[in-house]
Amino acid sequence: MNVEGKPTRSIALADDGWAAVIIDQTRLPHEYVLRRLENLDEAAEAIRDMWVRGAPLIGATAAYGLALAMRADTSDRNLDRAAEVLLATRPTAVNLRWAVEDMTARLRPLAGPARAAAAYARATEICEEDVATNRSIGDHGLDLIRKAWDARGGEKPVNILTHCNAGWLATVDWGTALAPIYRAHEDGVPVHVWVDETRPRNQGASLTAWELGQHGVPHTLVVDNVGGHLMQHGLVDLCITGTDRTTARGDVCNKIGTYLKALAAHDNGVPFYVGLPGPTIDWTIEDGVAEVPIEQRDGREVSEITGRTAAGAIETVRVAPADSPVANYAFDVTPARLVTGLITERGVCPASKEGLLSLYPERHNRPVG
Amino acid sequence: MNVEGKPTRSIALADDGWAAVIIDQTRLPHEYVLRRLENLDEAAEAIRDMWVRGAPLIGATAAYGLALAMRADTSDRNLDRAAEVLLATRPTAVNLRWAVEDMTARLRPLAGPARAAAAYARATEICEEDVATNRSIGDHGLDLIRKAWDARGGEKPVNILTHCNAGWLATVDWGTALAPIYRAHEDGVPVHVWVDETRPRNQGASLTAWELGQHGVPHTLVVDNVGGHLMQHGLVDLCITGTDRTTARGDVCNKIGTYLKALAAHDNGVPFYVGLPGPTIDWTIEDGVAEVPIEQRDGREVSEITGRTAAGAIETVRVAPADSPVANYAFDVTPARLVTGLITERGVCPASKEGLLSLYPERHNRPVG
Repeated sequence: MNVEGKPTRSIALADDGWAAVIIDQTRLPHEYVLRRLENLDEAAEAIRDMWVRGAPLIGATAAYGLALAMRADTSDRNLDRAAEVLLATRPTAVNLRWAVEDMTARLRPLAGPARAAAAYARATEICEEDVATNRSIGDHGLDLIRKAWDARGGEKPVNILTHCNAGWLATVDWGTALAPIYRAHEDGVPVHVWVDETRPRNQGASLTAWELGQHGVPHTLVVDNVGGHLMQHGLVDLCITGTDRTTARGDVCNKIGTYLKALAAHDNGVPFYVGLPGPTIDWTIEDGVAEVPIEQRDGREVSEITGRTAAGAIETVRVAPADSPVANYAFDVTPARLVTGLITERGVCPASKEGLLSLYPERHNRPVG
Repeated sequence: MNVEGKPTRSIALADDGWAAVIIDQTRLPHEYVLRRLENLDEAAEAIRDMWVRGAPLIGATAAYGLALAMRADTSDRNLDRAAEVLLATRPTAVNLRWAVEDMTARLRPLAGPARAAAAYARATEICEEDVATNRSIGDHGLDLIRKAWDARGGEKPVNILTHCNAGWLATVDWGTALAPIYRAHEDGVPVHVWVDETRPRNQGASLTAWELGQHGVPHTLVVDNVGGHLMQHGLVDLCITGTDRTTARGDVCNKIGTYLKALAAHDNGVPFYVGLPGPTIDWTIEDGVAEVPIEQRDGREVSEITGRTAAGAIETVRVAPADSPVANYAFDVTPARLVTGLITERGVCPASKEGLLSLYPERHNRPVG
């Protein structure tokens, strides 16, 4: 998508063909800073310090990290060390593990001298696969937005509410939840996006509002408390969020607060869709509320907020009393009964076991549970 | 309730018996600053600049403002001017208008020299009436909390979720939603309060967490997105919020986001109560969603946040992109069907016309719009 009018990806090879260029997302929305990753340690730092975030982008960055490691030293020892360094950056990131294991499995059988070129080729392929997957999610979601537009007689923009950031900044390009929105915008279907701030890390305010604004997509930032009121008053035509993990029966684990918006959508007859690539379906779990462990993060994400002062400095301020305890649950689970449909790269299906198996029939053969 | 171990009201006469002392609530939770109001202009400033907020406290401050005006000059001209100055501070505050009209109606018939003493007497009476009302709400709500404690076998604290600040800082003492909680705490019924941050103005983080902490009531601060997850996992026994306006059939207009918590409570079988003094019932309105106009406030309340830096300075930072539009709806309406009961100074009733009329039978005789 566009930044400052120029098509941009969240990770790409530099013009010199070997360094990887990423956006330091910790500086958004206040500063647009590109960073060159020139070696393994810089790639690891980018993941660990969250210059890059979002499962697909973390995986892509790890893939380029291995390529950069191979460029320096193609030995088995260095391959092992690079895998270890990358896996330690964010130990619970599933895509990170997948990318590192995929790369090392492909590189290990190769003779040393062939490894660097193969690593770059595979890293680029991982990125292109992600872009193709998201573009496909966008195509299928576009149909839903177009129908909503037709339903309102082709007049006025379609109002879409989203939570957190499941946009191109979280992937390589397009995003998951935002892919249908970008596709609609490019196809001339007028859209307007209600962007949830998404406390405590403010990914909506910092990232979603920024990327929509840069691409010229009309949007309005609201605090997380507002969505219910908007839906009560007919100001939302559909909701689209992303997901970190979807269970085999369609329960959706996503950023904390998603469940509250799904409840409001259900109470007001507003369709609630979730955009996801197939690999984020966890076929081993059925009951999301009972079975998905919810990460608790540092309370300072709640009690402290970072932003830009009028003087232009980036400053962190405390908003809570010094001695009040804080709890910081990172995700919640939206039961499948509240989800109108799942938008995948293979099409849209009901949030149910039958629905998911209709799109991923190969999973019939695997043990579930 | 207590501040720094000392029983404190949000407004009180100074030891000299004529100045009013308030807490500068704009400095909370970082600094506890008492301010003396010595004349009409200082009382008006306290209301206008939101050193005091909360409908009952605004009314009480206006009453003392008139008393201070009469202390300086008991003429008709000064009485009219004082009323005018106070009414202009926050034109939509219902309690402000009520207090000013109550006071001027009582003072005007009196001879000049009698006005100052009468004004002080009535201002003090308004405060005492508020305290009695809230204490009574606390008594009735205490029964509900005690039942919840008995229901869980008298073990472990009762977990109560609240939204925004309907505590003693918003009234003269006790609060509305928090009165039952303080009563339970004082009566030895163990309670733990989940405090919603309450974006965008953060009254939960700044005021509710602070006042509970000062009084020694166990509590945990969470972002507004968390409540649904807590209720899904049995971590909330009941919800209690305040209300700005309750319709004749029991729809509840309260701080934005209240509706989302009521939906989550309903979805998880958690009782959802609202604490309110009778005068906040608007008998002229039935359908809250359709009929209550929702104020939209300055977008900077969303895009900018004020807090304390590590160096101790109070600083405002911007968290949104510079050019993203912002919408800031201040309240929402929770339909009566989601409200388990209304806790009033006269008892607890169902959120319905019949329920409210059972407690306020004198309203049977009034035309309802």
